[in-house]
Amino acid sequence: MAQDVARPSLSDALTERVLELIRSGGLRPGDRLPSARELSERFAVTTPTLREALRRLEATGAVQMRHGSGIYVGADLERVVIPNPNFRELQSDQLLQLLDARLLIEPPVAAMAARRADPSDLATLRTVLDQAGCHLDGADAELDKANMSFHRATAKAAGNEVLSEVIDSLLSVHAAEQREILRIFDDRARDHDEHRAILGAIEAGDAERAEELMRSHLLDVKSVIEARLA
Amino acid sequence: MAQDVARPSLSDALTERVLELIRSGGLRPGDRLPSARELSERFAVTTPTLREALRRLEATGAVQMRHGSGIYVGADLERVVIPNPNFRELQSDQLLQLLDARLLIEPPVAAMAARRADPSDLATLRTVLDQAGCHLDGADAELDKANMSFHRATAKAAGNEVLSEVIDSLLSVHAAEQREILRIFDDRARDHDEHRAILGAIEAGDAERAEELMRSHLLDVKSVIEARLA
Repeated sequence: MAQDVARPSLSDALTERVLELIRSGGLRPGDRLPSARELSERFAVTTPTLREALRRLEATGAVQMRHGSGIYVGADLERVVIPNPNFRELQSDQLLQLLDARLLIEPPVAAMAARRADPSDLATLRTVLDQAGCHLDGADAELDKANMSFHRATAKAAGNEVLSEVIDSLLSVHAAEQREILRIFDDRARDHDEHRAILGAIEAGDAERAEELMRSHLLDVKSVIEARLA
Repeated sequence: MAQDVARPSLSDALTERVLELIRSGGLRPGDRLPSARELSERFAVTTPTLREALRRLEATGAVQMRHGSGIYVGADLERVVIPNPNFRELQSDQLLQLLDARLLIEPPVAAMAARRADPSDLATLRTVLDQAGCHLDGADAELDKANMSFHRATAKAAGNEVLSEVIDSLLSVHAAEQREILRIFDDRARDHDEHRAILGAIEAGDAERAEELMRSHLLDVKSVIEARLA
């Protein structure tokens, strides 16, 4: 039975063939793949075997299976780095390491954003902060989402897709804990003001100040967390 | 048929239950899970359905299925960030972005390593470089592996697991291209000497110098790549 379940070569090969089909067909995220029946026939495998391969690809964002609709190329296919989809619970020491990782990466990325954000990046950043402003008195989850969007949009504006994926991955895992941070980061208005100040420095093209403000913002968050864990 | 293949709730729920079984049982990477038959019975699902869930978990390193042996907890279960297992081919612009990402992250991480490497970290770094030294006239793949090990071991010595995972992810995707870099990074001895110099700074606890040497090392690599792409 264990041997039957392991069967590494068939499933690996099939996963590889689906990826080849996507790549050789020049399919992009959002494009539709042939139906499961067509794929089973094309690769001469049973539906359960095909499903195994598709589930592997789905787990990592390479395909998306929409209930009752079909199989699509996933948004994460071409990413270099992804958040671990099995990750569940951040331990205290991991939370501090995650903040330290963000402290190392995000300030110089904010500086890059200040150097090269174009008008469309700036418009996105303004919209994101305006939305966060609307949620200041609202539900934690909404405000949290808007705040994380600011960090993601800053990374996008820096123009390095790989760094953007790294930051996205760190924020994705962070998501559940961010609501906790938000609850204990007592002054929601202060958080928002710090984001506004970072945007101001990016708008002014002041790389040094953007870097410094992002660093002190994340240090603020970290000191609140440390005080709570102590 | 599409509806049948999608079935999101059952497979998602089953994946979740396998993860719960691992966590509630306090199982660690390398520990053996019950057999496929036992798992199917426990969760009251068929073997193909169970296999789907296991394949999802295998794709992301949460479990490992060893042919003819059984199912084990995978090494990557608790990671925050993982390399995209579906990633295949680095385009030129992505290669440069990847090097820029490494240039932003690895130098300050080398400084952290200089500040806090313990005797066991230093012993590992020395061993890794001695091994690379033995492969200087050998096969590309072996030398490449030893060189990547130096960057991984430096990240480990810095003591931040999340940053170490980020760097490991960047190097994993990089692996195929690193052999290409190695072929065009004409002087193997220079590469090795630069690694030795970085280790010297880490051994001396000189954070500033370790950072500077790691930066100039990666800039050397980048300039070779840029020259070749131009």
